[in-house]
Amino acid sequence: MRVGGRATRTIWPGEDGASVGIIDQTRLPHAFETIVLRGLGDAARAIRDMQVRGAPLIGVTAAYGVCLAMRADTGDASLERACETLLATRPTAVNLRFALEAMRASLAPLPAGERLAAAWRRAAELAEEDVALCRAIGEHGAKRLREASRDGAPLQVLTHCNAGWLATVDWGTALAPIYVAHEEALPLHVWVDETRPRNQGASLTAWELGRHGVPHTVIADNAGGHLMRNGRVDVCITGADRVAANGDVCNKIGTYLKALAARDNDVPFYVAFPYTTIDWTLPDGTGIPIEERDATEVSRVTGRGPDGDVSWVDILPEGSAAANPAFDVTPARLVSGLITERGVCAASAEGLRSLYPERA
Amino acid sequence: MRVGGRATRTIWPGEDGASVGIIDQTRLPHAFETIVLRGLGDAARAIRDMQVRGAPLIGVTAAYGVCLAMRADTGDASLERACETLLATRPTAVNLRFALEAMRASLAPLPAGERLAAAWRRAAELAEEDVALCRAIGEHGAKRLREASRDGAPLQVLTHCNAGWLATVDWGTALAPIYVAHEEALPLHVWVDETRPRNQGASLTAWELGRHGVPHTVIADNAGGHLMRNGRVDVCITGADRVAANGDVCNKIGTYLKALAARDNDVPFYVAFPYTTIDWTLPDGTGIPIEERDATEVSRVTGRGPDGDVSWVDILPEGSAAANPAFDVTPARLVSGLITERGVCAASAEGLRSLYPERA
Repeated sequence: MRVGGRATRTIWPGEDGASVGIIDQTRLPHAFETIVLRGLGDAARAIRDMQVRGAPLIGVTAAYGVCLAMRADTGDASLERACETLLATRPTAVNLRFALEAMRASLAPLPAGERLAAAWRRAAELAEEDVALCRAIGEHGAKRLREASRDGAPLQVLTHCNAGWLATVDWGTALAPIYVAHEEALPLHVWVDETRPRNQGASLTAWELGRHGVPHTVIADNAGGHLMRNGRVDVCITGADRVAANGDVCNKIGTYLKALAARDNDVPFYVAFPYTTIDWTLPDGTGIPIEERDATEVSRVTGRGPDGDVSWVDILPEGSAAANPAFDVTPARLVSGLITERGVCAASAEGLRSLYPERA
Repeated sequence: MRVGGRATRTIWPGEDGASVGIIDQTRLPHAFETIVLRGLGDAARAIRDMQVRGAPLIGVTAAYGVCLAMRADTGDASLERACETLLATRPTAVNLRFALEAMRASLAPLPAGERLAAAWRRAAELAEEDVALCRAIGEHGAKRLREASRDGAPLQVLTHCNAGWLATVDWGTALAPIYVAHEEALPLHVWVDETRPRNQGASLTAWELGRHGVPHTVIADNAGGHLMRNGRVDVCITGADRVAANGDVCNKIGTYLKALAARDNDVPFYVAFPYTTIDWTLPDGTGIPIEERDATEVSRVTGRGPDGDVSWVDILPEGSAAANPAFDVTPARLVSGLITERGVCAASAEGLRSLYPERA
């Protein structure tokens, strides 16, 4: 999507054919800086330190990390070590494993002399596949946004967390329908949940919508229910971290509360994600382990301090502790529809099987 | 309640008989400082600058402000000016008007020479009435907490915003049942919603529970639904800013979302408040105007900075705007019971009339 009027992706091969560029997302939204990755260590660090984040982008970064490892040494041991090193950066990320297995499957059978060029080709393919997936999600979702829009007034969309292009290579998942609809000149405005505790909405979603020129307003996570009760939200759309085979959705903490409010006010609630997010082995959401993250994410808030530099403040009194469950599960009964690269389906086992009959 | 092991109120007459002490709540939770008010201007400033906050405490502070005005001049013009000045500090506060009318009704008929002593007596009465109201709310509510508790495990209570002793003279409203139950040795633990955007939970509620020795954990506002879905909340209890005659509850933004989650998970959801909070002129909550506060409350977060002093950070990207509705309305259908100084009733017109038959 656009930054400063210029089409930009989250990751790109360097023009020198020997490096990879990324946006340093730890500096957003207060500074837009890019970083050049030159070796396996750089790529692993970028993933581990969350300079890149979002499951699809992590996967593609790992694929390019293998390319950088191949530059140094195309041997079997080097390939093996690259995959192991990169996999260890975020052990629970499904896309990371998927991308590394794709790279290994392409490169392992080749003679060492052909591996470098093949690695760059395969990584580029994985990046383009991600762009195509997201674009398809965007087109299917944009139809639903048009259906939800009322003549005359801009469509009011509410989203939670960041499932935008910054989490993918381009377009995003939950935000892809918004970008496609915006491109098609559908008047719209996005309510952006700030998404405590890490504020990915207030920082990343607001940043990318603003840079691309999409009208938006940031709200406290507490505000969405009130807005829905007062007819100020036409449709909700979020991403997902994991979707069970019955359509239960595991997503950023707080998603469930918005789905409850949407149901209570007859506001459609959509969840957008690519097929890689579906965990067919999980019959429902009850089996999904919820990561309990560091309490400092709740107690310490980062932003631009009084002198303009990035700083932080501690908001808790001395002696008070915080808890930080990072995700929640929204039961399928509260979800109006699932939007994937193949179309839109009911949030149910039947719905998902209708889009993915090969899984039936 | 206790601070540093010592019983403390939010406001007290000075031992010199000529001043009033308050806690400077703008310095909480990072510093506990008291201020001496010596004149009408001091009292008006304390209310306007939110050194005192919470409807009951504002009312009592205004009453003591009249005492301080009477010290300078007990004439009719002085009394009138004191009431006008104090009323103008927070024009929408019902308790403020109530307290000033009570002072005026007591003092106006008296000869000027008797007004100063009468003012101190009446202000002290108003303070004691508030303590008695809150204590009664605490006793009625504590019974419900005991009913909700399960043998063996500490009772898990969730609260939103600050409706504690800091908002009243002592005990609080939503927190009064917790303090009474804690005093009666009921094992309990409080989940404290941080309550964005102003973080009254993370700062004030956590501070007062911590100082009094009540076990508690601060959570992002997003987390409560997840905790309820996982059986980790036995009961919710909040305060109210205004209650309509049918039991609809206007309270801090985000209350509605917690009430939805409580209903979805069969968790009792109680709202505690004194009779002064009931607006008998409102048939239901739809007529309650919702204050839209300064967007800076969303975009700027205050806390203790890296050097230990109070500082702030801006969390939004340049060019992104925020919206800040400060309250929401929770429909009576989602409320399990209303707790007042007279007992506990259903959240309905019939329920409220059963407690206040003189209003029927």
